[in-house]
Amino acid sequence: MRILGIDPGLQTTGFGVVDVDGHALQYVASGTITTGHIERGDLPARLKVLFDGITEVRDRYQPDAASVEIVFVNVNPQATLLLGQARGACVTALVACALPVAEYTALQMKQAVAGYGRAGKAEVQEMVKRLLKLPGVPGKDAADALGLAITHAHVGASISRIAGATATTKKTTGAYRAGRAY
Amino acid sequence: MRILGIDPGLQTTGFGVVDVDGHALQYVASGTITTGHIERGDLPARLKVLFDGITEVRDRYQPDAASVEIVFVNVNPQATLLLGQARGACVTALVACALPVAEYTALQMKQAVAGYGRAGKAEVQEMVKRLLKLPGVPGKDAADALGLAITHAHVGASISRIAGATATTKKTTGAYRAGRAY
Repeated sequence: MRILGIDPGLQTTGFGVVDVDGHALQYVASGTITTGHIERGDLPARLKVLFDGITEVRDRYQPDAASVEIVFVNVNPQATLLLGQARGACVTALVACALPVAEYTALQMKQAVAGYGRAGKAEVQEMVKRLLKLPGVPGKDAADALGLAITHAHVGASISRIAGATATTKKTTGAYRAGRAY
Repeated sequence: MRILGIDPGLQTTGFGVVDVDGHALQYVASGTITTGHIERGDLPARLKVLFDGITEVRDRYQPDAASVEIVFVNVNPQATLLLGQARGACVTALVACALPVAEYTALQMKQAVAGYGRAGKAEVQEMVKRLLKLPGVPGKDAADALGLAITHAHVGASISRIAGATATTKKTTGAYRAGRAY
C-alpha cells in the first residue's frame, strides 16, 4: 500500500509518500508545495497552487490512501480561517478523485513516530529519518507529512491484525475522532 | 458575461447564475448544495460533496467569472475552522479550471443589492426577486448567491465604464480587499 501524507498550510504544505508492506516502510518521495510566489492577498490563487500541487503529487505517485493532519484553532482567528481554507483545498484535491482520506492530529503523529506526543520538530525529523532509513533529515514540513503517512501505516497494520484492513479504513479514522478539531 | 455567485457553507452552500449584458440582468439558475446526508464527522466526504456540486454547476452553466462571499470569523473558533474548510473546497472547485474568482463581503453584497449593508435576509431575497424579475423569492442561501453575482455584475459595469473590463477583474477585487476577512 502506498500512503500520501499531507501537512496542510497556506504558506507551505508538506507532502510525503511512503510504501508499506506489512511492517516494512519504504520511502518514495517528499517535499513541499509553497505559495510564497503568489501575492499574499490573492487567496484564490494561493488555494489553486495548493490544489494543483497536490493533484500533481497524487497523479505522479498514485497513492492508495492519504493521511492528512487535523489542524487546530489558532490564537489568531484570522489565521484559523486561512489555515482552514488551505486545508480545505488540500483535502479537496485528495477526495476529488475518490482517494480515501484518514485524519490524525499532530499529537497522534508524534506518538506514532517518536513515541510521545510532546516530541519536538527536530525529534520528528530524526525519527522519520531513522524509520525510513534516509541519508539525511527531511525538512520540517516534509518530515511531518512523512510522519502522517507512517502513522496511517501503523494504524493500518494494527487494524489488519484484527480484521481485513480495506473495509475498515473508515472505522480507523472514526476511532481517532473523539475530541478532535479540524 | 455569465456570473456564478457562491455563498459558501459547510452544511449548505448557495449558488446563483446570472447573465449580464450592460445593465441588464437575466436570471439563469440558482439552488443549494447540501451535505446534510453525509455523516457530520466525515469532513473529507462533506468537502467532496461541495467540490463535486460546484464542479457540476460550473460545467453545466459555463460561467465566465465567479463571485464568492468572504466569510468572517465566527464566535465559535471550531465553526470558523469548519467554515474555512468549506470555503476552501468551494473556491478550489472554481479555480481548478482557471475561472476568475472575485470576492465580496456580505456587507458589500447587501449594499449592492438592497442599498444598505444592514439589510436583513428577507430584504435581500425580496430585492433579488425584483432585480431578476423572478415569480417568487428564492431561498435564503440561493438569494445570497444571486446577490453576489449581481454585486459582481454592478462592479464589472462600473469598471467597464472606466476601462476595458476583462483585464481589470483582478484590480476590481483588489479594491475591495482593504480590511477584509476570509
